[in-house]
Amino acid sequence: MSIHSKDQVAASKASLSQLHYADSNDPDMRYISGVYVPDPFLALTTPSKKIGVATVSEYHRMCRESDFDEVLLLSEVEQETARRFHLPEGGKPAMSDVVRHLAERYGIERFRVGQRFSAGLFASIRQSGLAVDVESAGELLPQRQIKTAEELKWLRKANRASAAGFHVVAKALAESTVSKGVLVHQGRILTSERLRKMIGHACLEHEAMSMTTIVACGEQACDTHCLGYGPIRAGELIIVDIFPQRMADGYWGDMTRTFLKGRASDAQRRLVRTVKKAHQLALDMIKPGVVGGKVHQAVENFFTKEGYETTKGTLPKGFFHALGHGVGLEIHEEPIMRGTATFRLRKGMVMAVEPGLYYPGLGGARIEDVVHVITGGCEKISAAPYKWEIA
Amino acid sequence: MSIHSKDQVAASKASLSQLHYADSNDPDMRYISGVYVPDPFLALTTPSKKIGVATVSEYHRMCRESDFDEVLLLSEVEQETARRFHLPEGGKPAMSDVVRHLAERYGIERFRVGQRFSAGLFASIRQSGLAVDVESAGELLPQRQIKTAEELKWLRKANRASAAGFHVVAKALAESTVSKGVLVHQGRILTSERLRKMIGHACLEHEAMSMTTIVACGEQACDTHCLGYGPIRAGELIIVDIFPQRMADGYWGDMTRTFLKGRASDAQRRLVRTVKKAHQLALDMIKPGVVGGKVHQAVENFFTKEGYETTKGTLPKGFFHALGHGVGLEIHEEPIMRGTATFRLRKGMVMAVEPGLYYPGLGGARIEDVVHVITGGCEKISAAPYKWEIA
Repeated sequence: MSIHSKDQVAASKASLSQLHYADSNDPDMRYISGVYVPDPFLALTTPSKKIGVATVSEYHRMCRESDFDEVLLLSEVEQETARRFHLPEGGKPAMSDVVRHLAERYGIERFRVGQRFSAGLFASIRQSGLAVDVESAGELLPQRQIKTAEELKWLRKANRASAAGFHVVAKALAESTVSKGVLVHQGRILTSERLRKMIGHACLEHEAMSMTTIVACGEQACDTHCLGYGPIRAGELIIVDIFPQRMADGYWGDMTRTFLKGRASDAQRRLVRTVKKAHQLALDMIKPGVVGGKVHQAVENFFTKEGYETTKGTLPKGFFHALGHGVGLEIHEEPIMRGTATFRLRKGMVMAVEPGLYYPGLGGARIEDVVHVITGGCEKISAAPYKWEIA
Repeated sequence: MSIHSKDQVAASKASLSQLHYADSNDPDMRYISGVYVPDPFLALTTPSKKIGVATVSEYHRMCRESDFDEVLLLSEVEQETARRFHLPEGGKPAMSDVVRHLAERYGIERFRVGQRFSAGLFASIRQSGLAVDVESAGELLPQRQIKTAEELKWLRKANRASAAGFHVVAKALAESTVSKGVLVHQGRILTSERLRKMIGHACLEHEAMSMTTIVACGEQACDTHCLGYGPIRAGELIIVDIFPQRMADGYWGDMTRTFLKGRASDAQRRLVRTVKKAHQLALDMIKPGVVGGKVHQAVENFFTKEGYETTKGTLPKGFFHALGHGVGLEIHEEPIMRGTATFRLRKGMVMAVEPGLYYPGLGGARIEDVVHVITGGCEKISAAPYKWEIA
């Protein structure tokens, strides 16, 4: 239309209202509400305010603890809706009618919703004649990618919970003896399951929950999402990926270290050192303005140059996952730093950086830290030792 | 149309295929896949089989651990889709095109999706011309309401994790001394936060995560979803609601007990006893064929008869929440046993039953157990002492 059309689209989008319907496990809902509510509820934002609709069980807590400018009581809104649409006495209106009523009340003609919005409510709102558009991934609340000082504080704390987990793992490995190739700790065989539980307790002391920690040794570590099970064996690479979520605010930590009990082979040592070098290479590149995909490609090229080839498909080897991803109210959130990514890193983004190499027969190595993109570079907001070979 | 039309609708629905797109935190996805996958993925069911579409990181684990009859590799399916729709070389197809391609491949003309299905994918599938319908809540997988023997085993285990939490609470209350009205345990003031953490550790020992345990004393307990904070005070009713989720299978426990440190007043004692009687009254009524709403109404009437009036609105008092709800892969799942509920209890359902009374000034009391509906009645699948007054 004109050279201003993109700006005009942006301006018209900003003047549109958003609709959310989810519990607070939904990261968008948690972000706009600032409160944990375990059951789905309605929230809407107009250009001037944020409104939450609470059940009687949540009303006072939402008034007291949430970021909403206005909290409505669902039962009252349902009564108004029933009157407005002349429903029979005592009849409970459909949620789409509640939305129509609220749209009228606040003068909203069109709603924007996120990708994950309920298809059921979306379809019934459209059917009722109210306009509603689904935004592309990450476009409803793009500000989620740029972390505030408060979010940064929570993300640092979440990574301190991860670090507490690594401390426990390193200690248990050091205290273990080896019997017939298997680790023994406090008189019992040390398993992935036992370490996972020990990590869980350590995270809990830091007010965070670590539900699906990866503790995978040997071949298991080559199957990158295998949680790991059974005895920990000496002389095998052990990938430990600890990603706890804080209970109070919902923010995640995400760190990975690779360990080995005993003495590593030359091939194992070279693998771990190469991953560590790639990790540093990525951290050195990350700064505002750099295209995310370029960082991934640089790591991939470095691995290839060092002789570590990647093959994908059903039997993947080498470096076959994305280099990194945003971390916040989701463990994996936008932007994703894969080889094809065209986004530019921006000041304020918080990214997990996790190069890894996996070769069945040799094992896997991955190192992951979380960084905050700042002027001219990035700073690590996660800290744990990189000592990996444990006598 | 004819007296057979309802059967015909049911038969035609059964012959339709389902589509899911979510991570395994979505209970429907967890139910059909039987595996924990942390990132969203596609799954479809035809009348004869269940198909999962995995990324390279999940492929082997999904082949090994999931309930899918067939696991496809996403990158291969994307390549097929790109060829089928003549996308430019190396172009990544939209997820809706992947769905269209799979629909053709498996001869599917129409998909059913759940209420929570992604509005974004729903809209783009419809736009592509493929038929997709959203089912009402609980209607996509109604079999989730009737638990199998295996699910029952997991639900019992999840409730054992809850019970371990109550054991820790009762012990801590018994071991505490009272100083200036506040409980002191192991030399430090006993707070809701400390008890919540102790409960978390106890649940973790039972392979379950208890994220948002309610430990609310005094006035806090009248705000039914307030998690509770600060010192525990002697002589106040303390509601402890422990709902842990098992890591291995995703099933939840859900139990509540009410405690008091010291000696209760007559009014507090009568409140707790009345709630306990209502709890028993509900358990005695629950059996196959009974309308869920009738059980709630019976409890409400009993409370009224005993002089405990209920008022709703922004300052609710009395018994203002639903009597109970299904428990499974969701902490609150269908059916919900509220006063207006018209569903009939069926053999195999697992229901949390949680009468409660809340009066600002006096405090709150709630007792909750989980029952399995069996022939002629129900059996409790949760067990913890009801001793509440702790010297």
